[in-house]
Amino acid sequence: MAGDLDDLTRRVAAFRDARDWAQFHSLRNLIVSLNLEAGELLELTQWKDDAQVAALAEDLHGREALQDECADVLLYLLLIADKAGIDLEAAALAKLAKNEAKYPVERFRGSSRKYNAP
Amino acid sequence: MAGDLDDLTRRVAAFRDARDWAQFHSLRNLIVSLNLEAGELLELTQWKDDAQVAALAEDLHGREALQDECADVLLYLLLIADKAGIDLEAAALAKLAKNEAKYPVERFRGSSRKYNAP
Amino acid sequence: MAGDLDDLTRRVAAFRDARDWAQFHSLRNLIVSLNLEAGELLELTQWKDDAQVAALAEDLHGREALQDECADVLLYLLLIADKAGIDLEAAALAKLAKNEAKYPVERFRGSSRKYNAP
Amino acid sequence: MAGDLDDLTRRVAAFRDARDWAQFHSLRNLIVSLNLEAGELLELTQWKDDAQVAALAEDLHGREALQDECADVLLYLLLIADKAGIDLEAAALAKLAKNEAKYPVERFRGSSRKYNAP
Repeated sequence: MAGDLDDLTRRVAAFRDARDWAQFHSLRNLIVSLNLEAGELLELTQWKDDAQVAALAEDLHGREALQDECADVLLYLLLIADKAGIDLEAAALAKLAKNEAKYPVERFRGSSRKYNAP
Repeated sequence: MAGDLDDLTRRVAAFRDARDWAQFHSLRNLIVSLNLEAGELLELTQWKDDAQVAALAEDLHGREALQDECADVLLYLLLIADKAGIDLEAAALAKLAKNEAKYPVERFRGSSRKYNAP
Repeated sequence: MAGDLDDLTRRVAAFRDARDWAQFHSLRNLIVSLNLEAGELLELTQWKDDAQVAALAEDLHGREALQDECADVLLYLLLIADKAGIDLEAAALAKLAKNEAKYPVERFRGSSRKYNAP
Repeated sequence: MAGDLDDLTRRVAAFRDARDWAQFHSLRNLIVSLNLEAGELLELTQWKDDAQVAALAEDLHGREALQDECADVLLYLLLIADKAGIDLEAAALAKLAKNEAKYPVERFRGSSRKYNAP
């Protein structure tokens, strides 16, 4: 399916290339940066109890922060995939297929076993 | 643009719902899980120097590991967006527009200033 | 105060040197490893609600896991400090002094302002 | 050995209690905060190649940043141990003993096997 992942990749690559920034984008730097952006998403949950985290998306400020941090994670993920020559959609479909085999519906339906395992 | 993000979201949501796992997917749990998957991507760089990290994608085993970990990050990102009611494509486009304004080409072309700032 | 940080540093450095592993311990590798160990601590909270996380230390298995992951974070922190020539105790005392100045008791007592700030 | 870990714990607990902040310090919040501080340490390596990271400790500004971030990690680790009733020194010694058994000198001396394992 032609789609938005390709389109977004083209846009973020154009942003990078217009600034000649590919020289700073080693695979390592991009992976570190994705981790730091994931950390900013985690930071939105800092000092909050479960109910406050759940309410994040209903608050105007919290919602915009969530959108921005999710966007940053996605943009670095696209840059990593572009750098490493990975087809993200194919990779996600392949991983879903692995997960289907690993967690068969009949054994895991309604079960928290996956989540309680050590 | 109708596209693969929507399609992937439908698939990962179907995977979740077939197992009745939404009950475990609080926004906090999903954000923590995304951080742990980002950490698994970072783990692929552990104990490697710059050249070894750069070579990861050229090695068959390294390449598959990169694909799997990138996929896991994307799948949790889709679940977060689904849970929070975020349109990931719109969020990424909005963030790119903010970045365009923040880093004008004429001032940042070829410059590592962004990257050297404290 | 002569003490356990020095003693622990001597022990972990002896462990490293007996195996001739300093060659793998670049500052970057140690910092990445500390992040991965912090992630393993975070993993202990994955899929748990607030009450379940709070109960971790009361369960025999959870307690041992907490001890091990805290130990791993400390051991890498000692290796980083050793590598970078940092006196951890002095650094911690200096940071506490900075925090004392930044969060004066009279303004922050019982206040969650620090924690609610964006 | 009576020592600096106990002394530092008393000081950081006094800092916390003078502000009545224990109410915000759930085990989860402290673990998340330690991860965010570890991330700030990782951020010091962002956009740097191996040589630049290695040089961090020799630069006045880089050195102070390293000290501050290492201190923050240690302070949260002390708060976690205090909250969970963990003896950090004993935990670190026990983990070192486990590692001694897991990586016998005669098999791992000079070997990067541990570091190359998948």
